[in-house]
Amino acid sequence: MRTLVPFDAAEPKTRLEPLLRARERETFARTMLADVLAAVRAAGGEPLVVATAAVECDAPVAVDERPLSEAVNDRLEPTTAVVMADLALATPRTLRAFFGASGDVVIAPGLGGGTNALVVRDPDFRTDFHGTSYLDHLRVAHDRGLSVRECDATRLAVDVDVPADLADVLLRAEGDAPSWLRKVGVRLDRSSGRATAVRPGGRQ
Amino acid sequence: MRTLVPFDAAEPKTRLEPLLRARERETFARTMLADVLAAVRAAGGEPLVVATAAVECDAPVAVDERPLSEAVNDRLEPTTAVVMADLALATPRTLRAFFGASGDVVIAPGLGGGTNALVVRDPDFRTDFHGTSYLDHLRVAHDRGLSVRECDATRLAVDVDVPADLADVLLRAEGDAPSWLRKVGVRLDRSSGRATAVRPGGRQ
Repeated sequence: MRTLVPFDAAEPKTRLEPLLRARERETFARTMLADVLAAVRAAGGEPLVVATAAVECDAPVAVDERPLSEAVNDRLEPTTAVVMADLALATPRTLRAFFGASGDVVIAPGLGGGTNALVVRDPDFRTDFHGTSYLDHLRVAHDRGLSVRECDATRLAVDVDVPADLADVLLRAEGDAPSWLRKVGVRLDRSSGRATAVRPGGRQ
Repeated sequence: MRTLVPFDAAEPKTRLEPLLRARERETFARTMLADVLAAVRAAGGEPLVVATAAVECDAPVAVDERPLSEAVNDRLEPTTAVVMADLALATPRTLRAFFGASGDVVIAPGLGGGTNALVVRDPDFRTDFHGTSYLDHLRVAHDRGLSVRECDATRLAVDVDVPADLADVLLRAEGDAPSWLRKVGVRLDRSSGRATAVRPGGRQ
């Protein structure tokens, strides 16, 4: 399946600032991108990275400086999937089930109401990634009479955004992201009820 | 399926303190418990609440003051499910799929490495809910030669623990918990990338 992978090349992952320096955040974002591209391909997807600036990666790249929704909508010929570049927990197995789910629109909601992945099979559907896009996308599909399937996978719900998400990357991701984090000194802190990520040596 | 629902009756949900007063946290915890009991029943489960103290609810209650793992292990006759009382996003549909998954042990990991739900079909398995119990439970099953199935559902992965989780309750829960939160003034804040929960009037 044709799969758009949006990637924000300018100052990615700023909310990881407590644990990673700017240069590290860039490297980590590209590591997650590579993991996602590999998982998409292994699941039978053909990725096209839609980036705000040129980025080196193992897939074709379309540079598009417009807001995300416009850049995606212009490329939404049926059938097209959209998979965010920071889904470090995504596995080929999860993506295969996602690509194979039925529905005019298949939505994988993110934590906090975002939309982390989509399959769009109807040309009437338009994306709007601003705000709580999960609710907005449900409304758009409903207004246009399209069938919607929700894909409730944690491996697609965790877009790596804040330090707490790194704990789940360390615990469950299967690509290169967890080993990269360990290499720079990010560790699990298991002292509280829910594990968090810490960097005992601080940012270097 | 026989389903243990552990419930901590003493000062529940302390990490919600920024948004809810102690009395409110107790009421909210009982509201989530009622939602979970209803979802378990609708999914074909027969709930038994295992609580640290007496609690009024629509199910039989076993009061057990021992640590959670001991209280659960003593009641693990095959087949037994364990479903945490704070899974406010759980729906009958998700729990039905969870109960029906094959495996000597079925695990629904929580965010941050906990174990939010289990199905135990083999008498050799023992729970250990301390720390990152997801990894511990995988190891216990592996050491005893038991087959394990991971159930990767966001609706089971979000145990409501911190204020950010309340956003997902407001966005996606289908029981009484979201309307209770709205009644006391908890609202979605959509101003940042990931929606959060706020209480514009403050704690009252």
